[in-house]
Formats: sequence, structure tokens, C-alpha cells
Amino acid sequence: MDIIQSVRWTDDGAGVRIIDQRRLPGELVERDLRTLEELCAAIRTLAVRGAPAIGIAGAMGLVALLPNGRLTRDALLALARRNAATICATRPTAVNLSWAVERVLRCGDRTMGDAAAVLAAMRVEANAILDEDREMCRRIGEHGVSLLRDGMRVLTHCNAGALATGGIGTALAPIYVGRERGWRVDVFVDESRPLLQGSRLTAWELRRAGIPVTVLADGMAASLMRERGVDLCIVGADRIAANGDVANKIGTYGLAIAARHHGVPFVVAAPTSTLDPSTSTGDDIVIEQRTPEEVRCIAGVPTAPVDVEVYNPAFDVTPAALISAIVTDRGVHRGPYRFDERAHYYHAPYKIQSR
Amino acid sequence: MDIIQSVRWTDDGAGVRIIDQRRLPGELVERDLRTLEELCAAIRTLAVRGAPAIGIAGAMGLVALLPNGRLTRDALLALARRNAATICATRPTAVNLSWAVERVLRCGDRTMGDAAAVLAAMRVEANAILDEDREMCRRIGEHGVSLLRDGMRVLTHCNAGALATGGIGTALAPIYVGRERGWRVDVFVDESRPLLQGSRLTAWELRRAGIPVTVLADGMAASLMRERGVDLCIVGADRIAANGDVANKIGTYGLAIAARHHGVPFVVAAPTSTLDPSTSTGDDIVIEQRTPEEVRCIAGVPTAPVDVEVYNPAFDVTPAALISAIVTDRGVHRGPYRFDERAHYYHAPYKIQSR
Repeated sequence: MDIIQSVRWTDDGAGVRIIDQRRLPGELVERDLRTLEELCAAIRTLAVRGAPAIGIAGAMGLVALLPNGRLTRDALLALARRNAATICATRPTAVNLSWAVERVLRCGDRTMGDAAAVLAAMRVEANAILDEDREMCRRIGEHGVSLLRDGMRVLTHCNAGALATGGIGTALAPIYVGRERGWRVDVFVDESRPLLQGSRLTAWELRRAGIPVTVLADGMAASLMRERGVDLCIVGADRIAANGDVANKIGTYGLAIAARHHGVPFVVAAPTSTLDPSTSTGDDIVIEQRTPEEVRCIAGVPTAPVDVEVYNPAFDVTPAALISAIVTDRGVHRGPYRFDERAHYYHAPYKIQSR
Repeated sequence: MDIIQSVRWTDDGAGVRIIDQRRLPGELVERDLRTLEELCAAIRTLAVRGAPAIGIAGAMGLVALLPNGRLTRDALLALARRNAATICATRPTAVNLSWAVERVLRCGDRTMGDAAAVLAAMRVEANAILDEDREMCRRIGEHGVSLLRDGMRVLTHCNAGALATGGIGTALAPIYVGRERGWRVDVFVDESRPLLQGSRLTAWELRRAGIPVTVLADGMAASLMRERGVDLCIVGADRIAANGDVANKIGTYGLAIAARHHGVPFVVAAPTSTLDPSTSTGDDIVIEQRTPEEVRCIAGVPTAPVDVEVYNPAFDVTPAALISAIVTDRGVHRGPYRFDERAHYYHAPYKIQSR
């Protein structure tokens, strides 16, 4: 099975190689980021996207772009701090980016020895972030596959797959694991307007892995459930409140309502780091409005009056009562959900407890 | 209030003037159809669309394109029959088109006198079809406005407005009538993928009439209900079964489920001719699949892998149990619905009983 690797080192280790997600599904273009400008532009323009993938690209980029053997320890660390600030400023609200970049920076600070030793330690730390993310995806897949069966028809939304992470994704991870077991799982994916991550990205990566996939417009999901049947819905999450309410890509909530109406189980898959016990319910989550242009245009072509009012929330909140199960890297949780600080054992995103 | 007139005579009466809906919302282009080729191309390419508007354009076009005073009665009727067959062949499944064209043709056949008398009678009949449709829309508006109040927030889907009819539309008619009464009604419209009739057409015609309108992607409707509140949903219908199940543009069913979940009344507005007592329930309605290209591309730009599987039903069926009221030109009907031949008193589409 050919599952894409969205972020990795260049062959010489002096750069970060990403899949340029802006070119999908038309073309598979890999881009080597070898300067700070290239790295920041790739993050800013969504050439690399998905919270885990952005964090990994930032952490690896910080290391790859530091000069090897030409600076003193202090000069190297000073340069790393300046670069880190520049990288983090590209997506100031992306918590994963600053978390990953600062983790590599702290590792450098606390490492004894000369510049070469510091740089080597930082590279080990960046690799650890990638490896931990890959392992986290794998665990979500192994836990989540218990909810699948051979022959199932599964509906997903947006892209919570390999392209968004360092591994086999979150919502798509159980599907990939099922495939590894030789199962046939037919996947249906909403195109996910306005940014079309479902039709552009999820359809592309699943086809590449040989998994049968069908694309539908967002308004067709309820009809699909009624006319053709869906056995399970599975989506990712941006944040999960203490009571199990889930913030995720806009469109998730309507899908959950339709699933409940048809008796279809609705499952959320996300790393434990997505659990936010400090947010008691979904009502405490502020919903960001994105630019109206995303709805007024598609791929630069106007599809509405140029200055019409637009409602364009980035995500919505699905109440816990509509969620059949929440799959994390620690297991399958069922309601009533009460995530507290102990459930949120890993204090930083994607930090996996060592076994 | 400037409500658009989608189809009318050219100033000299020798052609049909339409609004070219392919150019909306970018430009308001009126197109004069003065040859059979122009008329057929306009219908075939959806320059004119909406079942009532297509029927009106066909009926008026049939008359406008016949020569004045150069043929015998028999030659005129023979030419009219040939032209009618050509016009009807442009959209063979559009029942309204063949109904309207044949009605004008039959009128010519039964009119006594010479070619001039026949042609005059056919023009009167074409005008009657337009006037009856306009009157039908007005009645739907007058009945439906009883469900609205000043200050309401109303969500609609697709385009069941002036652009689709000879008058003020069906689903939009009560909103226009409310506006005439000086009410403020805030309208929200789903963009209505794949063909975007909501963002392209409904948003355009409501703004032109000075009615505040906000566009949202289809997956955002449930979030709008939860976060901002919606007082009423109102949509059109393609066909209404005897038990009140409604076939309408894809996306309607999911909207009805979300409305029920939030306790928002869900109303269908359509002419009595849409009632089909010979279809006992929605399960008897065959759902046509449209070309996958509509979902794989937007405005010619690929948005999914080029040969990916697609689910693209033209419409869906909303069960009567989810419908709060059905508004027709005869009144406001509430469930349980039992439409029989008497309810369907008008045997032909849009034929209005004379008072």
C-alpha cells in the first residue's frame, strides 16, 4: 500500500522535502525547502497543511536550515531563535507549529557541548517529533480499526489523512489499517467546501493507496445515507472539550445530525493532544470566521455576487451527544465523555508516552 | 422593488428576450432570441433555466419565430409543428417545455380563420401562459407570507425565484411579498453545489430587489442554525408525491433533517401542478444521476482526481414527516398530506382555474 509521506528530509538532510498540496490533485509535485524564505512561504501558502504536518515541517526546517560547522554554539543558538520566531510567525494561530519549533529550540538550549553537538541533538529531536507523530497515527489506526469490518462503507469529511500528518493520518488511519488486513472498505468523502480538502486531498491520497473512494458534494451526504447506505462516519478533530464536544472542519456538525437521523455511528479520531480539558464544553470554543472570498470564488472563479455577504466559519462544534465514539492513540472512548487532566496525560501536542 | 423578469417579448414582438443566466452573477446580459437556432441553443445551454421559465420561453419563442403574413394557414401550422418538435427536443425531460409548446400549438390548430388569425390566437395563448405563471407565483407568495413575520431570518436552497419563473418565483415569492409589505426578511442561501444556483442566481436576484442576503456553503447550514439562528427554511419542489414526500434539488433533504434537529419549520412552496397524485410516495421517484464532471470540476477547474468515482444525484427526496407545510397557489397545506386528483385539480402544469 502506497501511503504518501507528506514531510521528510531531503536526501542530503540539508532541507525539508514536502508534497506541494496546492498542486493536488492535478500533479504530485515534491518541493525541497532549502532556505528560510522557501520554508516560510510553503507554510504560509498552505503548500504544507494539517496541524501535525505543519509542526513537523517547522521543526525539521529549523534544523535543516542551520549551517553546519561554521558558527559558535552561541551564534548557532541565536540564529536558531531568530529563525524560529520567523517560522512561527507564518501561522500564528497554529499551536502545533510553535509547539514543535520551540521543542527543538529548547532541546538545543539544554544540550551540552559545541555547535555540532547542539545541532545533532536538535536533529534527533526533530526526528523524534516526526516519529512520535507517525506512531500516534498508527495507534489511532490500531484502536480505530476495531470499529470497522471488511466490506464497510465509510463516509469521511475534509482531510484527516496522511497528507495532514507525519504518518497514516487520524480519521483515515483505521481505514489504512483495515486495508493492511486485506479488508475492502469503500470510502465516501464530502468535497468539503470551501477549500475542497475532501475532493482534492482525501480522494487523491486514498486512490494512491488503492482504496476505493467516491466524492460527493457536501449537500449529498444525507441522500447517500438514505439511498445507498453508509455504515460508519469518521472524521478528525481540531479540539475536543472536556465533555466530548468536538470542534472540527465546517460541515462536520451537519454530517453528525444526518448520521444520527439514519442511525449511522459517528466517530471522531484524533490524538490525545487534541483533548482540551480546560475547555469545559463546545460553547466555550470561539468560532473563527474566514475570508468571504473563499465562498465567493472557487479556484479564483467568481461564483457569487462580488460583494455579497458571506457566512464562512472555519469549523463547527458537534455536541458529544451526537458522537458514538472518540478514538485516540490511547483507545476507544465512549460517552458520556469526561476528559480531565489525567485523560490529557500528555501535556504537549503529540508527545507520546514512552513504553 | 426591482424583481427581475427572466423571459419577455422583444420590443418589436418578433423575438424572445431572456436574461442569460450563464453570465450571472458576473454580468446582467439580456439576449434576444430571433431564430430557431438561437432559441434552442439558449434552452439547451441553460441560458434560460427553471421549469416554468423554460416552458414560457418555448411557448413565446414558437410564436415569435413564425413569419407574419407570408404563409397560408396550413403552411403556418405545418411550420409551427416542425418548430415545436425542434424546440421540445432541446430538453426532452422538461415536462413544462413540451406542455407549454403543445398548448400554443393546439390553440393554433383549433382557431378558425386565416394565418393572421391563427398567429394572433397563438400569441394570446403564449401570453396567457406567461400571465398564468406570474399569477401562480403571486398566489404562492400571498399564501406563503402568512408563515413569515417582519424581522425573520429565512434559509433557502438553490433558486426557486424570479429567474426560474415568469413571476416572483415559488420559494422566494413569500419573501418578495413580505418585502412589499415593508418587512425586513434576512435571507440566507446555500450555494447549492454542484451547479451553484444559490450563490450565482438567488443571491443575485435578491440583492437586485434590495433584500439582504448572505451566502453559505452547503455544509454550513446546520452551523448557521446552531450559532446564529434561523426562523424558517423554505425551498421549491420538482415533484410532490400523494403522501407529501418532496423531490427537490439535491441538498434539500439534509437541510430538512438539520431543520428538524433545531426545531426550525421547514416549508416547501410549489405550484399545484407540482403535485403528482400518481406517485404515491417518494420511494416511487427515480433519482437521476448527473454527469460526474459537475462534481469533479468547478467552472472548468478540476477540483478532484480526474477519473475519481462520483455520487451526483440531481435531486433528493424529503419525507413528508420532515415538512412543516406545503404552500401552493391554492393555500397552505399541513400534514398529514393526502393529495388526490381533486387536490390536483389543474390537470396541466401551471394552468390556473379562472375565477
